[in-house]
Amino acid sequence: MTGRSPSPPSRDRVRPDVAVVGAGPIGLAIAWRCATRGLRVVVHDPAPGSGASAVAAGMLSPVAEAYFGERELTGLLLASAARWPAFAAELTETTGVEIGYRTEGTLMVGLTGDDLAEARRLWAYQQGLGLPVTPLRPSELRDREPALAPRVRGGALAPTDHQVDPRLLVPALRAAAQRAGAVLVPQPVRHLSDVDAGVTVVAAGCGAAALTGLPVRPVKGQILRLRAPDGFAPGFRHVIRGYADGEHVYLVPRADGEVVLGATVEERSDTTVTAGAVQRLLRAGVDLLPELAEYDLVEAVAGLRPGTPDNAPILGPLPDRPDVLAATGHHRHGIVLTPITADLIADLLLGGVPDPLLAPFCADRFGGAAVAASGGPEPTKEGDRWS
Amino acid sequence: MTGRSPSPPSRDRVRPDVAVVGAGPIGLAIAWRCATRGLRVVVHDPAPGSGASAVAAGMLSPVAEAYFGERELTGLLLASAARWPAFAAELTETTGVEIGYRTEGTLMVGLTGDDLAEARRLWAYQQGLGLPVTPLRPSELRDREPALAPRVRGGALAPTDHQVDPRLLVPALRAAAQRAGAVLVPQPVRHLSDVDAGVTVVAAGCGAAALTGLPVRPVKGQILRLRAPDGFAPGFRHVIRGYADGEHVYLVPRADGEVVLGATVEERSDTTVTAGAVQRLLRAGVDLLPELAEYDLVEAVAGLRPGTPDNAPILGPLPDRPDVLAATGHHRHGIVLTPITADLIADLLLGGVPDPLLAPFCADRFGGAAVAASGGPEPTKEGDRWS
Repeated sequence: MTGRSPSPPSRDRVRPDVAVVGAGPIGLAIAWRCATRGLRVVVHDPAPGSGASAVAAGMLSPVAEAYFGERELTGLLLASAARWPAFAAELTETTGVEIGYRTEGTLMVGLTGDDLAEARRLWAYQQGLGLPVTPLRPSELRDREPALAPRVRGGALAPTDHQVDPRLLVPALRAAAQRAGAVLVPQPVRHLSDVDAGVTVVAAGCGAAALTGLPVRPVKGQILRLRAPDGFAPGFRHVIRGYADGEHVYLVPRADGEVVLGATVEERSDTTVTAGAVQRLLRAGVDLLPELAEYDLVEAVAGLRPGTPDNAPILGPLPDRPDVLAATGHHRHGIVLTPITADLIADLLLGGVPDPLLAPFCADRFGGAAVAASGGPEPTKEGDRWS
Repeated sequence: MTGRSPSPPSRDRVRPDVAVVGAGPIGLAIAWRCATRGLRVVVHDPAPGSGASAVAAGMLSPVAEAYFGERELTGLLLASAARWPAFAAELTETTGVEIGYRTEGTLMVGLTGDDLAEARRLWAYQQGLGLPVTPLRPSELRDREPALAPRVRGGALAPTDHQVDPRLLVPALRAAAQRAGAVLVPQPVRHLSDVDAGVTVVAAGCGAAALTGLPVRPVKGQILRLRAPDGFAPGFRHVIRGYADGEHVYLVPRADGEVVLGATVEERSDTTVTAGAVQRLLRAGVDLLPELAEYDLVEAVAGLRPGTPDNAPILGPLPDRPDVLAATGHHRHGIVLTPITADLIADLLLGGVPDPLLAPFCADRFGGAAVAASGGPEPTKEGDRWS
């Protein structure tokens, strides 16, 4: 795995340097970075982009998502978000595909006094980390977003928290990876032994558990897509993250009129859309932005995030399989972490010296018992996607 | 049109006795009744069953829907509901198709004290008409439906208000009509002059306005379909109609686990599903029956009811076109009124003497100005379906 140099071109079918299992944003971005740097890359996925990214909202929110007790994760989120402008520019320049990267920033708001008190506690923590969080007076909040409900009590601005559209990102990454020479194989991978490559990168989201035994579990998220009526753009332009009578929701406006409203966080492995979740999301959304009541409800869908015990991703070799790298467990942060994950994994494959940034996210941090090279726990329902 | 007797059979293509425009429940039932009695019938519809019936819940509720100021309509609803048991039995016997006819009765409930006060006013009116409405003590209500929310303040039973599944009814009626000899022509009718038949019956729902000039307007209804989890039947068996913090909703349980939750009544002609309507329906539904929160939300859809100025259907010949019969404007009552509409129209076609029941529903009751034989107002959006 270490010190690998690009292989000479060959017209015969040769063993790839890298096999990536999973063609979500993480897997495709790794393939792109590796192929660009001269490695022979194949990506295995029967349904590219059909996992968590198809459901994700695409917030790039290292500041708003800087939570208590997750300082190392916050550091990685910030480092990756900092790479996003160049990553987005390069991707669009390479492929000609617009990916909906927007920089209007994120407003964090509290509907009631209790909501605002909870939000302020978090904002103080984020400010304590030196992050750019600017509390706004109610008048300043309404100057920025007049569509907010009059009863929203207060808010703060995170100007560096941006957004991208994951449903545009995946085809762009796929085009970029293929243009760089990566080969997409629409076959499922049941076992690591199905793959013949110098190194295997497991970027299979929740499916990583069945393949590697890593403690990756599905965390269900239900999400809605609304659309402003009559072809208009949404009446707001920031990403809005709100606490509304105890419900935490976000609203992500797209230029084409779409608004993503999410999301539940449920320790379940099914992908059914439930009446109660839809009602709670809509109630909170409409309470924060009354105009949403008149929007079309165009989609209600659930996805499974790959969660880990500490909510942080797993990046790097399996303890007993140096030829297998994990790039999974991104939980709620797969989109924002795409650039840095791809860079760190590609650097590791090409240079062989692990970046110090990787240390907190190594695969053996949960103890040996939780990790088995292959075998491991019974495949979960989501794991079955890969079998 | 009057005194028509069955034509002799012919192997040539002969002019039909009756052309029905619209293959919803009304048009198909008319075709079935006419064809059974020996008339040559064609039914024109490019998309049978795709109108209001595809969205309808299928409540047969003449009692619960006996509203102030609609005594003649109530009489027709009651008369038609009385025909439903035999109609359903004959239809299933003829076709072998089960149509989900259920007789558990309807519970009418009020969530809050204010809701209950509003409901009781209506129940008193209904009892005053001599209709079977039995107020229930809270304990009696919960004995009947333990799944009702504890905070539901009170209710009443309408034991004779039943239900049928419109999505099963339409294919059954189609099979019955075709078995009786009616011919389905999957072509749209733009103008009455496109039809060559002894008599034309316009059963085109909202499309009747453009064809006849009758004052039929679209009344939008949004409705949800939920499903009990894991293949179970819903945890309640009555149709439940509730007032919930001022929102009027109904919940119709099906044997296969489906629950229909409806419906908005909006003076609009679009069929978009809006976030606000879905939220209000779900909120009211979950408030009345908390277990619904765990149900899958499987469909959110909107349809257009054919409304009239007095909420009653239009049944009988156009004032200046005795060869054109209207059977439209059934508004919220198309399913319950299917049997009597079919019988009355078929009787009229075969016997020629209008049933006295028809008198309040004649086409000229809105004044001549509103009715033009053909031409009339510009086609509505819904009217375009037929053009």
